[in-house]
Parts: sequence; C-alpha cells; structure tokens
Amino acid sequence: MHIDDIRFRIAAARRILYREGCDSNVGGHVSARADDHDDAFWVTGFEYFDQTLPDGACLMGFDLQPRIGELKVSPAVNFHAAIYERRPDVGAIVHLHSHYVSVLSSTGKTVGMYNVSSVLFYDEQATYFDDGKKSHLAVVDALGDKRVVLMKNHGAIVASESLEQATIEALTLEQCARYHLECEAAGGTEILHDEVVAGKAMYRKHFLPNMWEANFERLRRSDPDLFDALG
Amino acid sequence: MHIDDIRFRIAAARRILYREGCDSNVGGHVSARADDHDDAFWVTGFEYFDQTLPDGACLMGFDLQPRIGELKVSPAVNFHAAIYERRPDVGAIVHLHSHYVSVLSSTGKTVGMYNVSSVLFYDEQATYFDDGKKSHLAVVDALGDKRVVLMKNHGAIVASESLEQATIEALTLEQCARYHLECEAAGGTEILHDEVVAGKAMYRKHFLPNMWEANFERLRRSDPDLFDALG
Amino acid sequence: MHIDDIRFRIAAARRILYREGCDSNVGGHVSARADDHDDAFWVTGFEYFDQTLPDGACLMGFDLQPRIGELKVSPAVNFHAAIYERRPDVGAIVHLHSHYVSVLSSTGKTVGMYNVSSVLFYDEQATYFDDGKKSHLAVVDALGDKRVVLMKNHGAIVASESLEQATIEALTLEQCARYHLECEAAGGTEILHDEVVAGKAMYRKHFLPNMWEANFERLRRSDPDLFDALG
Amino acid sequence: MHIDDIRFRIAAARRILYREGCDSNVGGHVSARADDHDDAFWVTGFEYFDQTLPDGACLMGFDLQPRIGELKVSPAVNFHAAIYERRPDVGAIVHLHSHYVSVLSSTGKTVGMYNVSSVLFYDEQATYFDDGKKSHLAVVDALGDKRVVLMKNHGAIVASESLEQATIEALTLEQCARYHLECEAAGGTEILHDEVVAGKAMYRKHFLPNMWEANFERLRRSDPDLFDALG
Repeated sequence: MHIDDIRFRIAAARRILYREGCDSNVGGHVSARADDHDDAFWVTGFEYFDQTLPDGACLMGFDLQPRIGELKVSPAVNFHAAIYERRPDVGAIVHLHSHYVSVLSSTGKTVGMYNVSSVLFYDEQATYFDDGKKSHLAVVDALGDKRVVLMKNHGAIVASESLEQATIEALTLEQCARYHLECEAAGGTEILHDEVVAGKAMYRKHFLPNMWEANFERLRRSDPDLFDALG
Repeated sequence: MHIDDIRFRIAAARRILYREGCDSNVGGHVSARADDHDDAFWVTGFEYFDQTLPDGACLMGFDLQPRIGELKVSPAVNFHAAIYERRPDVGAIVHLHSHYVSVLSSTGKTVGMYNVSSVLFYDEQATYFDDGKKSHLAVVDALGDKRVVLMKNHGAIVASESLEQATIEALTLEQCARYHLECEAAGGTEILHDEVVAGKAMYRKHFLPNMWEANFERLRRSDPDLFDALG
Repeated sequence: MHIDDIRFRIAAARRILYREGCDSNVGGHVSARADDHDDAFWVTGFEYFDQTLPDGACLMGFDLQPRIGELKVSPAVNFHAAIYERRPDVGAIVHLHSHYVSVLSSTGKTVGMYNVSSVLFYDEQATYFDDGKKSHLAVVDALGDKRVVLMKNHGAIVASESLEQATIEALTLEQCARYHLECEAAGGTEILHDEVVAGKAMYRKHFLPNMWEANFERLRRSDPDLFDALG
Repeated sequence: MHIDDIRFRIAAARRILYREGCDSNVGGHVSARADDHDDAFWVTGFEYFDQTLPDGACLMGFDLQPRIGELKVSPAVNFHAAIYERRPDVGAIVHLHSHYVSVLSSTGKTVGMYNVSSVLFYDEQATYFDDGKKSHLAVVDALGDKRVVLMKNHGAIVASESLEQATIEALTLEQCARYHLECEAAGGTEILHDEVVAGKAMYRKHFLPNMWEANFERLRRSDPDLFDALG
C-alpha cells in the first residue's frame, strides 16, 4: 500500500488524534470523500483511534451500503453521507468525543477566543442539541455552512477541505476547548477582535500544514505497527 | 490455560480497568460468580490492578472460605458473597476506588446525565455512606436492586450480568463521574429526559460489547506478560 | 549489594515516589536512620527521584559531616538530623514537594478526611510557614510529635517508624491532598468522626504493608536499571 | 559533533522542555546567541520540541538571513534578533506556548509567589498583549530589562544569561503558573515578602544548575536518538 493511500491516511489521522489526547472511546469516526466516486466515502467502524489499520477502512455509498470492505459501523455514520451530499466543499469529516470538547459542549457555548490557536475557529462554529425526538440528521442542518458543530453533552463534528486539515482542526479544537474552560475559570478574557482577525489568516497559513507534518513524523516513532502495514 | 478461563478474564478485566485510569491502590476487587458452583465466586487479593495474573484468582465460598487457591483477601470481600446470594441476576462485581468516582462520592450525589455515555447509568444508581457504627454489609442493602452503589468518600460497587459488562460499566462510570464534576464546574446542564431514555437503549446495545472488545485488543499490546500466562 | 541494603531501599523508595506522581524536582529527600550508628543517617543528594541508584546514598553524621560516600546535599538536610536527634521513634523521613501537597499547603490547612485513605493522617498532622526570619530548623519544632508537617507554599515532611511506612504515607498524603482539593471544590463533605477512627486502625493494618509490596513489585517492571545495581 | 556544540545543546533544551510538559505545538522556539559572531544567533524552525535534532538548528543573522543551514522559520523569530540586539546581557531565549503559562496569561497577571520555586521570578516579569494593530516587535519593548514577558492569550518569552538557565527558567515558569492557578482556586496565599527575597538567592544558587544536570541525565534514557546524533 502506498503512503498516500486514503486508507493509510485515515488510519494515520485516527492515530494522530489519539496521540494528541482525543481518545473518543469506540464512538469517534474519521471519514474522507472518495476521489474517484461521486457518491461514496471512506470510513472506519467501532474501534479505538489508536488501533486503526488501513484495511479497517471501508468504502461506503451515500446510501450507506458498503462497496469495498465490510465493517460494523456505528448507525451514526449516516450524518457523514448527508454532509458530503450537501456540502461539496467538504473533503473530510472528523467526529470526536474528546474530553474537553465534551465538557464545553454541556454549556451550549462555542469555543471562545482564549488562545492564539483558537482564532482558527472564529466564525466557524455552530451548536446542536439532541432532544430525543428530532431526527439525528438534524445535526447536519445545525452545521449549515460552518466548519464545526458542537453537539451538546456529546462531542463535535469537524467538516473541512481535506483529511489533513480536518484532523489538525479537530485536535486543536480539543486544546482550545480546554483553554476556554480553564481560562474562564481563572478569570481570563478573550483576544481583542482585531487580533482575532489578523491572527486567523496567519495561523491558517503557517499552523495547519506544519502541524500535520510534525504529527505525522511523531507517529513514526509512536506507531511503528501502522507503518509496517505499508509492506 | 484457555483464553476463556474465568481466571484469565478476571486478570484481563483488572488490567483493562488500570489502563483506563481506574487505579484503585491495592483495595479494588473484581469477582465473578462461579459457573459450576451454587455458592462460590472467583476473586483476587490485595494487589494493584495492573499486576494481576490468572493464578492470582481464588475460588471462595459464600462462607468466605477459600476452595481453590489461597490469597490475602481484603476483609471487604464479604459484600461480594452477600450480593451473589441476594441477587441471582448478578454474574460479576467490580469494586473500585477510582479517582473521579471517589471525588464525586464525597458529595453524596449520583452520576448526572452530562454525557452520552452517562445514560447507561440512568435509574441504575444508589448511594451509601459509612458511619463507623452500622455493619459494613449495609452497603448491600443500599445497593438494593440497582447496578451501581456510590460509597461516600470511598468509591463504588458495580454489580452486573457479566464480567465483561461490569468492567466496561465500571470504567465508564469513572469517565462519567469526571464529566459530572467538570461539566457542573463549567456551568453545563444535563441531557434532556427523552434523549436520556432513547440514548440508553442505543448505548447499551452498541457501546458495551464494542468497548470490551476494543479494550481487550488494546491489552494485547500493553500487557504482553498477561498473554504469556496462557502458555 | 543485598536487596535489603538500606542504600538499595532508599533508592527504591525514591523511585516508588516518582512512579506514584510525587516528582519533587531536585529538592526532595529520603533518609533513614543508620541501624548501626547512634548519630548518623543515610540520605541522598540533589537529583530527581527517578534517577537514584544505591550508591547515591551517603552516610551522614548528625553533625552533617559525611562518613561514607560524598555528595552535593541540599542545605535543607539539616532538619533530618534534628528530627532523628529529637524523635527516637522516627526511623525514616521523606521530604517532598509533590504537586497537590504543595497546592494544599498554600492554604495553611491540613489534609481533610475526604477519602478512606485520608484517615491514616487523622490527628497526625502539623503546619509550618517560613517568614524569611526564623531559623529553617523551626520546622522541627512545628512537627513536634506528629507524623506529618505541611510546609506552606513548599511541601511536606513525613517522619515515620520505617522507610517503608514513610514512603507509603508520603505517596498517600499526595493522593489525599488531591482528594481534599477536588472534593472541596465539588462541594463534598468529610467522613463522619466514628468512621474516621474505625477506619484508621483498619487502614494502618491492611493498607501500609500491602501498598509497599505492590509498589515494590511494580518497580521491577518500570525500573530494571535499579535492580541491575544488585549485581 | 561534540556534546557541547550549541546545536546539540539547543536540541537537548527543546527535548527537556517537552519532557517537562512544555509542549508548544509547532510554535515554540529556543535560540542562543552565536559565540563567534557579533550579529547572529542559532535557532530552530517549525517542529515539535521532542523532534529536534542538532542539524535542525540554523545560524541566522540579526537581519533574519540564514548563514548556516536552512529552515522554515516562523515569522515570529524576528523578536529573537531584536532582543539580542537590545539586551547584551541575554545569551539565550525560549519562547513557549506551554499550557498553564498560556492559561495564566489570559488573566493579564504575572506568576504569583505561591511556591518556593516561584521566587525565581520575583521582580523579573513583564506582561504584553497584542491588539492586532501594533507591531509584533512591541513585545520587545514590553520585555524591557526583565527576564520574562507573559504574552496575553499566547505564552511567554524567557530571556536569560545562558541556554541552560533559560531552559530551566522556562520549565519552572510553567510549573509556577500551574501553582498560581491551582493555589488561587483553592484559596491559597502567597509567600511572605522577606522569605521571597531570602529564598530567591538560595534558589538561584542551588536550583538552576542542579536542575539542568538532572534533566540532561533524564534525557539520556528518554531520548537515545538525540545522543545517537553525536556519532
């Protein structure tokens, strides 16, 4: 298997999320739109982020029927299909139950501008809560045209251009949720508006690509079994 | 020894609890009703969860006399016998002193519905406190027909159908106790009632079996010495 | 070197403290009264707890002159000599700067009875603060005939019968300081008085010896370089 | 390469910072004034602290042109050049985004005297905030003749005599920021003024050199790949 294979990259993304403290029990998902199909995406099943191997990824149609591979998928993957259908700009989706995102979600707030890296999420967040009555796909409406939706008492969905970007945004969201909670508890205040806007452009340019590369390198040492899968 | 041997599974359960942050000093116990005896259960002695090997488990009668193996057991194992006698539906018991459960227990509250996984414990919890006068077996009365009893300033007992289920419920209880404490501190609110009920059925079906399997796999890498014991 | 050599046991005690989260930068000390001298004790110099090897221990007279070995000792070891002189019941001393003990010390409080293991310290604690004027040996007066003195904004000294006991008491003190801080923040309350008294006898009997043994076993896997020193 | 080579020492400093919990994503920098140039310093590019190898360091002029080596540097290295130009007493600079420093920075406060090690920073700290309008070099004015500047919602810069000292000061600053936050939350109070002054002299003499040595030793076990680079 080539190192650029989408199945390898999905497994790497899941391992990176785990290494960066985004453990999500068996309920987190990482998916990517299939390059050579109009109506399908690659996704993995119930397992811990740190256990994923490339052949754990399955190609699934927007009709939720598996096309390549077979796996026990969460009934919750239906929102991936719905987002890819509705949002042509989205190339990859991360759904995570990471700790601080889940804590912050219980307040109904979005991630505040408490840290230089938080500016990545300025004007990019929506919120959602489940009342046990509405369709679970209502979260797709809640996301709208944003990059992030925080799901109350649950976690978040990050929908972004590429797998690399969605992964780094997801782990940064977790860090920024922690900053929000701890800065607020300490009586901290947010970044001034002009600096948020200036910083966002700067961070998007320098931070995202360098973070993927650095995390990928870190994986070579922490997860040799993943690289063994390349043959 | 076969991988399905109850002694191996008890050792695996203890190691899983340790890996998932449920360290309980030398005072945690994991036991399982003996399949082929009417009045006995398997249990381990004073040691850290991460050190247990299969031959550390001992078969003990409900009269607290050892039948197979010998070990220094905590005087507190008496409540295991009492629960197995009174509750024919209980196949395994986990007693743990894990950190966040112990902190939450000091408030006298039960675990609130602050996270999707918390719904597993909806209508399944009781509380108990020790006053230095009543019998230590009074905790069995306090448990009643529930699945969980939170012991004030101490920890919890989880009594469930199977060893696998009791283990995953115990480690999830610890995660949910942490969510309770941190969500409450952040001003978070609980899940709406209808979603609690709908989510509980869903979580019980998908979460428990997949979590045991994923944790068991994780153990293969973290605890090779345990698997060496299979010979 | 024999496994019962006091120098080996001091190194093991320091490694156990590190493994149990009592990292104290280079300022923590572990000492033990010399069995075969009336006026000397074994102590180690400036280094991290996890780095100590048996030959890092030095025999030092109550006059603070080295008798066997040589090392850069902290000027603060003078209180060890003073405690051994004044307290014939004390066989070993641990001074630590562990995190939660240091945080709690800033409040001027002693460790409250928030957890079953906290009862070990009931009626065993004193407090001390430094004003930059009084002699540093004033901490020995503050300790008096207690087992523990919490030093404000600094850490604690544990003076106990044996090295094994002082070590387990020190690491348990750290756990109980954390329980105090987090239970208090969560609105928790302490254990009722009668249970404190009943629990203390029980815990002292079962907890201390089993904890030393379990921690020592854990060290065999985590610190093979220490055991290599036995030759 | 010799173990005293500045490039090796910069890599070691970065690894020490990582080991001591000062992970700063890809945005932290460590630099040292070049001994044999009047107008240049050694610095590393975008990467995690734990990944740095000696040949990742580049010699850069105060004009921000690379002289030896080439690397993708953060646009933020410009403040290193400005500090070396303005402050002949400064031999090394650490810029870090460590967690507790970043949280505390959001309050606009400096690190309070909550712990014995905090006294190192008494009368040594300034604060800075970015408004999105002023030049990023304004942080150099804010630093003035101090050793530390806390950057609001961002992190800190430590400018000190030597690389060894800047490194230990940076990791101690992180520990003391955590003490500040947790002691304040627990209702703790600061060290009395006379003890701050007396303790500062004592700590500067004993703590700094022993901490570098102890951390460097710890690196031998945790980072063998770094030492492989010595050939």
